[in-house]
Amino acid sequence: MSAAAKQTRKFWGWGIEEADLTQEERSALVRSMEQRFNLSGLEPAAPPRLEDIALPEPRIKPPDALAAICSTDKFERAGHTYGKAFRDVVRALAGDFSNAPDLVAFPKNEQDVTDLLDWCGGGKIAAIPYGGGSSVVAGVEADVGEAYAGAVSIDMKHFGKVLEVDTVSRAAHIEAGIYGPALEAALKPHGLTLRHFPQSFEFSTLGGWIATRSGGHYATLYTHIDDFVESVRAVTPTGVMESFRLPGSGAGPSPDRMMIGSEGALGIITAAWMRLQDRPTFRAGASVTFPDFAEAAEAVRAIVQAGLYPANVRILDQTEALFNGVADGSVAVMVLGFESADHPLDAWMTRALECCADHGGTVPDGAAPGEAGATENSRDTSAARTGQAGAWREAFIRMPYFRDVLAGMGFIAETFETAITWDRWPDFHREVMETTEKVVREVCGQGRVSCRFTHAYPDGPAPYYSITAPGRRGAQLEQMAEIKAAVSEALIRLGGTITHHHAVGRYHRPWYDKQMPEAFRRALAGAKKALDPAGVLNPGVLVDPL
Amino acid sequence: MSAAAKQTRKFWGWGIEEADLTQEERSALVRSMEQRFNLSGLEPAAPPRLEDIALPEPRIKPPDALAAICSTDKFERAGHTYGKAFRDVVRALAGDFSNAPDLVAFPKNEQDVTDLLDWCGGGKIAAIPYGGGSSVVAGVEADVGEAYAGAVSIDMKHFGKVLEVDTVSRAAHIEAGIYGPALEAALKPHGLTLRHFPQSFEFSTLGGWIATRSGGHYATLYTHIDDFVESVRAVTPTGVMESFRLPGSGAGPSPDRMMIGSEGALGIITAAWMRLQDRPTFRAGASVTFPDFAEAAEAVRAIVQAGLYPANVRILDQTEALFNGVADGSVAVMVLGFESADHPLDAWMTRALECCADHGGTVPDGAAPGEAGATENSRDTSAARTGQAGAWREAFIRMPYFRDVLAGMGFIAETFETAITWDRWPDFHREVMETTEKVVREVCGQGRVSCRFTHAYPDGPAPYYSITAPGRRGAQLEQMAEIKAAVSEALIRLGGTITHHHAVGRYHRPWYDKQMPEAFRRALAGAKKALDPAGVLNPGVLVDPL
Repeated sequence: MSAAAKQTRKFWGWGIEEADLTQEERSALVRSMEQRFNLSGLEPAAPPRLEDIALPEPRIKPPDALAAICSTDKFERAGHTYGKAFRDVVRALAGDFSNAPDLVAFPKNEQDVTDLLDWCGGGKIAAIPYGGGSSVVAGVEADVGEAYAGAVSIDMKHFGKVLEVDTVSRAAHIEAGIYGPALEAALKPHGLTLRHFPQSFEFSTLGGWIATRSGGHYATLYTHIDDFVESVRAVTPTGVMESFRLPGSGAGPSPDRMMIGSEGALGIITAAWMRLQDRPTFRAGASVTFPDFAEAAEAVRAIVQAGLYPANVRILDQTEALFNGVADGSVAVMVLGFESADHPLDAWMTRALECCADHGGTVPDGAAPGEAGATENSRDTSAARTGQAGAWREAFIRMPYFRDVLAGMGFIAETFETAITWDRWPDFHREVMETTEKVVREVCGQGRVSCRFTHAYPDGPAPYYSITAPGRRGAQLEQMAEIKAAVSEALIRLGGTITHHHAVGRYHRPWYDKQMPEAFRRALAGAKKALDPAGVLNPGVLVDPL
Repeated sequence: MSAAAKQTRKFWGWGIEEADLTQEERSALVRSMEQRFNLSGLEPAAPPRLEDIALPEPRIKPPDALAAICSTDKFERAGHTYGKAFRDVVRALAGDFSNAPDLVAFPKNEQDVTDLLDWCGGGKIAAIPYGGGSSVVAGVEADVGEAYAGAVSIDMKHFGKVLEVDTVSRAAHIEAGIYGPALEAALKPHGLTLRHFPQSFEFSTLGGWIATRSGGHYATLYTHIDDFVESVRAVTPTGVMESFRLPGSGAGPSPDRMMIGSEGALGIITAAWMRLQDRPTFRAGASVTFPDFAEAAEAVRAIVQAGLYPANVRILDQTEALFNGVADGSVAVMVLGFESADHPLDAWMTRALECCADHGGTVPDGAAPGEAGATENSRDTSAARTGQAGAWREAFIRMPYFRDVLAGMGFIAETFETAITWDRWPDFHREVMETTEKVVREVCGQGRVSCRFTHAYPDGPAPYYSITAPGRRGAQLEQMAEIKAAVSEALIRLGGTITHHHAVGRYHRPWYDKQMPEAFRRALAGAKKALDPAGVLNPGVLVDPL
């Protein structure tokens, strides 16, 4: 999409209407699914129309002073009802908007945020911080229960500026409501980039990335947004919090690390100083094929333990490679990439390919090293777009649009992601696959489960699993709930995290409760009590108010 | 010192008696200081003798069940009175042990720790966690005020084992009371190393490193212990807290990051899973001289912003280089080192030296690249020991022994360290140097202030300042307090952190209070209240109990 093109955000699903699947793509998807699962007569549901859905009457009315920044517009309320999870789309397609926020507020400055929180605190109104609304864990859904008089979705879109760029330290002071493309556009004239490219890049904001510990471009080293946060500023119900801008510190537990991942439960992030990168000018990349996924994983382990720090070292299992048009289903694929604004990467790439070769990895003819440097999520238009990496990248970015249509075809199309140490990885993966495939078979009769690595660490990988299964229209929520419960129980039982980079929200909360150390729960609740004594900030995520 | 040699810990100062300065070294130090500051008649004080000092009577008596693990032995109480700061040594030399803990406890297991905390909580007794006692910020000093019935120093030395080594993930489960050398000795047979070598390495523990966000071996990337913590276990007054063992997670604010840097105020760390490294087999190093410190700093910036991640990229200003026997005082010196267990480092080193050359850095004749790979704090006996890096390393490790003697000669011998972004660094450094030199002159008449970088980040350096000035015996504490106040005010006013890796303790607390966001103080106090409702854990550090 060019910047000038018309863009209408879908109120019920992923992205913009103008980028939705063409009729041809829809037909091809139907044929592909019918063929893959030996089905016939699949029919995507029509998108819901705003005029056909009913929203509950707003239960609250803003005080006059806040009326100008609050909206009860139907499109806004519907559009702020859900994040972008599979079950959000299913519910939207079914016309269920019963959790719509009573109001959507668009604060223009910090005083507005403070005033909104004051009003919410005084009236026991839930305050739901809203960035781009791309949560896949019900992190922005006003499902807050009867204890609250109502709910306000606080959309931070007016906090959209890069305030200051420090080219010497390579950092910028950025408002939290800025979306990915606007952020990168503002940095580009300075030769700088945040290089944080989650799949949601176009439809998510800096504040959302920080609040959810978003995972981004880099497969190693700087995996989460966390490490790029130099300082953070947030409005809490009891005052503004801002940390010193520091390259590093050892002064007590990090204040930033408490706000990072706080999911709107402790405060509303309004700005941050972010660490930036020079725009890469050197690239080395390869697509490497492996006879099996286990060997590919061993190659990843070798590379990350070698201290080479590739920007990309993602592997796709056979199914994942097939579904993404990257390979024919007989091999696992690694998308390997190094990048630098400073130096040629031959030594790095050479050694990484040796690690691959040690584990049976080969570079296919015609996909010479250096040509396939694109990385997951990359919107970096200077990156190569050819070869397996390019194919995968395109599939990856378009995926959520396809997901919306699959949901409307009655499918289960869901993902879950985790992290585990290398010593447990092989057994963990086998058991997770077995559990998932079993429950998918039980629930849907058939289905495909695939795995890739999104990020990797010296002590373990972050595997990402995708489920595609023919569900039953009208029963998808119950079907998914059964699958979700089995899978999540397995993750926690086997020692994985309930989320590596999707955040907890309301969707993962029951299993997060099992993962979270009990003492930490009390500590976090104590911290929340101090910052949000009325317990109005995003109730339902992370921890309950004391 | 060989492991078998007799080692008697000094109860009043740094290290072990057997490694203290020889008579020759003392005489040389006296001559050197007389010459440097144009003085005569300097005379080191005799070390205090245990029999000459008086300790206050213990105010508390342990319950019978805890009597076996509690000691009122005079050596133990005196030895646990202070950390190892300059002012600790000055007070010890003056025979002031008025803050001696009433008891020293040596728990043998977590139940003992729980029982001790139960007893302390019930009797409003301060519980001071004690690792190796190497704090330079009064982090282990029982200076807790009249609100407490007494104070127990809880020495974790019996938690001294490596419990499990996972060579696949390169991680180990380690008890928190283990000292540096024992830890590395236990890992060595596995070909692994934590590579965390603070100056205090021989006399500090894993738990202490984690509780204080200790800075270690690596000048870049893995600067603090933080990143090596895979999971942590702690006993709090309200229960044991243990996080999942994960390579990465995005599930809420990190529980580990709350305990890391908590300085004993939230719980007593008993064990941790730590990320390890393969023992390096490839090394590349150089000592690079620069005409001035500012250019050396620019070279550091170029190297860290290039994404080369050297293990060492420390620079010494002219004075620092002179005092450490590394150069003649006319040049600044960079100690540059790369290490790897996986690959040759020529490409890395070549590019780093180009960055140096761009800023006037030259490698002196006779100090060829590759020969000087020792890194700050390195106890890694396989590292090279020759050249400027080797000279500096020796001086660095022996420094605290010399400091003890300087304290006894009436000198001010103190350091402070911070971090600041690159854009502010030049002005920051000039103002900090001017402020420090001015107050040293005012207080002592003369003195030398020097600077080096201990760690460096893409967005800024961590400068470390050393003060050597002829104070007045009997007035050193007041003199130091005046200097400390002026320096700390400047650090905070100019936007630096009050500590990059020495922790806050009681010494930095007044300025930490100015740095800490007010909302975070409330949040941290709320967390503390939840974990330590009686407020007995290390009162005085970080935050006051609610």
